[in-house]
Amino acid sequence: MAQKPSIPRGTRDFSPEEVVKRNYIMDTIKRCFTTYGFQPIETPSFENSETLMGKYGEEGDRLIFKILNSGDYLNKVSADVYSEKDSLKMTSSISEKALRYDLTVPFARYVVQHQNEITFPFKRYQMQPVWRADRPQKGRFREFYQCDADVVGSDSLWQEVELVQLYDAVFSALQLKGTTIKMNNRKVLSGIAEVIGEADKLIDFTVALDKLDKIGEEGVKKEMREKGISETAIDKVQPLFTASGNATDKLNLLSNLLSTSQVGMKGVEELTFIVNSVETLGLQSASLEIDVTLARGLNYYTGAIFEVSAPEGVAMGSIGGGGRYDDLTGIFGLKNMSGVGISFGLDRIYLVLEELGLFPDTASANTKVLFINFGEAEALYAMKAITKLRQQGISAELYPDAAKMGKQMSYADKRNIPFTVLAGASEMDASQYTLKNMKSGEQISLDYEGLVRKLQ
Amino acid sequence: MAQKPSIPRGTRDFSPEEVVKRNYIMDTIKRCFTTYGFQPIETPSFENSETLMGKYGEEGDRLIFKILNSGDYLNKVSADVYSEKDSLKMTSSISEKALRYDLTVPFARYVVQHQNEITFPFKRYQMQPVWRADRPQKGRFREFYQCDADVVGSDSLWQEVELVQLYDAVFSALQLKGTTIKMNNRKVLSGIAEVIGEADKLIDFTVALDKLDKIGEEGVKKEMREKGISETAIDKVQPLFTASGNATDKLNLLSNLLSTSQVGMKGVEELTFIVNSVETLGLQSASLEIDVTLARGLNYYTGAIFEVSAPEGVAMGSIGGGGRYDDLTGIFGLKNMSGVGISFGLDRIYLVLEELGLFPDTASANTKVLFINFGEAEALYAMKAITKLRQQGISAELYPDAAKMGKQMSYADKRNIPFTVLAGASEMDASQYTLKNMKSGEQISLDYEGLVRKLQ
Repeated sequence: MAQKPSIPRGTRDFSPEEVVKRNYIMDTIKRCFTTYGFQPIETPSFENSETLMGKYGEEGDRLIFKILNSGDYLNKVSADVYSEKDSLKMTSSISEKALRYDLTVPFARYVVQHQNEITFPFKRYQMQPVWRADRPQKGRFREFYQCDADVVGSDSLWQEVELVQLYDAVFSALQLKGTTIKMNNRKVLSGIAEVIGEADKLIDFTVALDKLDKIGEEGVKKEMREKGISETAIDKVQPLFTASGNATDKLNLLSNLLSTSQVGMKGVEELTFIVNSVETLGLQSASLEIDVTLARGLNYYTGAIFEVSAPEGVAMGSIGGGGRYDDLTGIFGLKNMSGVGISFGLDRIYLVLEELGLFPDTASANTKVLFINFGEAEALYAMKAITKLRQQGISAELYPDAAKMGKQMSYADKRNIPFTVLAGASEMDASQYTLKNMKSGEQISLDYEGLVRKLQ
Repeated sequence: MAQKPSIPRGTRDFSPEEVVKRNYIMDTIKRCFTTYGFQPIETPSFENSETLMGKYGEEGDRLIFKILNSGDYLNKVSADVYSEKDSLKMTSSISEKALRYDLTVPFARYVVQHQNEITFPFKRYQMQPVWRADRPQKGRFREFYQCDADVVGSDSLWQEVELVQLYDAVFSALQLKGTTIKMNNRKVLSGIAEVIGEADKLIDFTVALDKLDKIGEEGVKKEMREKGISETAIDKVQPLFTASGNATDKLNLLSNLLSTSQVGMKGVEELTFIVNSVETLGLQSASLEIDVTLARGLNYYTGAIFEVSAPEGVAMGSIGGGGRYDDLTGIFGLKNMSGVGISFGLDRIYLVLEELGLFPDTASANTKVLFINFGEAEALYAMKAITKLRQQGISAELYPDAAKMGKQMSYADKRNIPFTVLAGASEMDASQYTLKNMKSGEQISLDYEGLVRKLQ
């Protein structure tokens, strides 16, 4: 009854090498989160369906994995509903739970449910898998980790400053130099909408403007006209087409452009505070840039919008993003809880570090020494040393069987174990161990203390 | 449209304090696994249903959480099946995936699927959640972590020796002294069945014998008679009722009792090798005991059987268990792959450490210092120090708003932050920071270097 084993489309097995590299990234991020005062929480993999449904739009609802009720689930389906044989209508009768679709909605649920135990402002991070019934494709999975840091309960702009620093701290700790942290503000976008007098065309407008690098000023204007944006509007924002220079230059330009819009000027003021503060405090390896085309989750964010791109030359979408939202927990009945958060794209960061060869050797951490097994008495002699080495925190293994030497050495090779110990009858008599460097082939004879010194 | 938020029965939210404590346990175990040469793998949360179904018995099948197919799932249900309205028959038509029920079957699937990439013997560990549609009750959850270490591809008894040492290493590292590692062997149980001539009564026999401590020799014999075990059989195993002394004494007793059973004597021989080796190598804080009543997963294990109990005085079931199985991967078509493994009961270990007060202070690791916010200029001055402290790995926070002093101090209190820094205009003028010890109330004035020294 043997089956050819496989896993569901869009899911992955992770080999030891991959797990160790993924843990390296996650541990580095966790360490940075901790120095910034963020605390970890974890929420269940599945939530009550009503917690998730309706929070991600119609498309999102469709992509949520639903869990079938246990037992005789059809028993609870009314004859009326059953007779229709309509999947959409049936679902709520046979499924009450669903797999987490992101970490944001469960976090909002957590904050409201535990509001009396939480000390606000609450700085939490969360690193857990999420599941989406997306069509699997290259780089898009049905199960993947999200990694979010959010602060709720304060509208202080220092949070935005800290989150920019946090991005810089994480990517610097990962030795990933040259990332660009792009920043925009929802209020600036609202200001632009006011100035051009076409609020409903704002998305078309930013999408077109985003192509400036690729299709040039005339190309962008052509696309704007095709989308029905008026000539007057295009004229009004002419300065955006020739925007250049550093963040301060762009802020000056926006300040002029949006001078008639109260909300727009508020956005400029917020951005200015963040840019100036970050400039004063300094970044280690990232640079901060103003990007007025940045509009991630336009309807969701209410203030700052962030996105991080990989260093130039690495073809990869954004490796992080986030922003401020003024009403995260309102859907669960807790009003006026402003929050701001960022997330890290773990899978993409993994690919970037791999491409640039930035995983340290320790990220393949492994058994340090394999003791060759020459038989029962020799194995016991070896195990005495192994037991003590392990107590010192040194990873050591005994080859479990007295197999042929070639097989045991090949095991060490394939596992990339850097040292082997050969200890046969003569070594036992002399209380010695022959240590072999698997790379150089060099062999030396040592007593136990010498062995520890050499392996530490 | 506000909802009163809640989570599904049998699932849990973990607060920062709980996550940090859980991570302390998991990190300690991982560190030990690594020094023993075990490597981590991860498998998807859901598997194809046919991978899981039929592997855990009828009861197990019922307790597996099934995932509803996406899209118009009823469209694929034949009219015949639909007309029956039979939940059991319907399931395979509307669900193709299911949540992992344990880590063993996915591991077997992994080994078979990746057999050409794996270097055998393969020592793997895995620490991931599993899901069971059990009726939730105290200490039993529908989502919980399992933590398994297994070696496949070798039938060497050194593995058993190492696994006993590994249990000892982990519990010693957790400062949980006085655990008892109980060991039995399936072959010894088969030997007993042979000797008493009633193989089909073996479970009744061990269940009754297990009550010796509670109900005494006569009570056990009474129960055995009630279960239909013959007087002759009971006479034959008389020595088991008065078994006492250490592991060697018990092995001598078994050796006499099972002398006519070939398989029984093989079991005794295996146990003897393990006991002698462990005795020679020594344990740090656990003790090893032979327990012939131990029969976990009788139909599953083929050699050694392990179970760990918490130190005396702690009322808690087993905190770990495992054993050798000769045909883990046969269900997926790969024969003759002997394996042996152990698991750790994370939730129970957590409760034991909590009860005995064994979580170290570092397991509530937290922000070290909160800078009080006196306004924009002071906050910037604070942020300069915070930025540098964080680069040194010291966890520091700025209170985000210039709120009333009491509110800021109360935040530090509730978060158990041990130090605060007060830096107003006078400190700024003097390039100083006033560091307050929140426990003693002591305040001292320091320059930046002094601050770092004090907080490191």
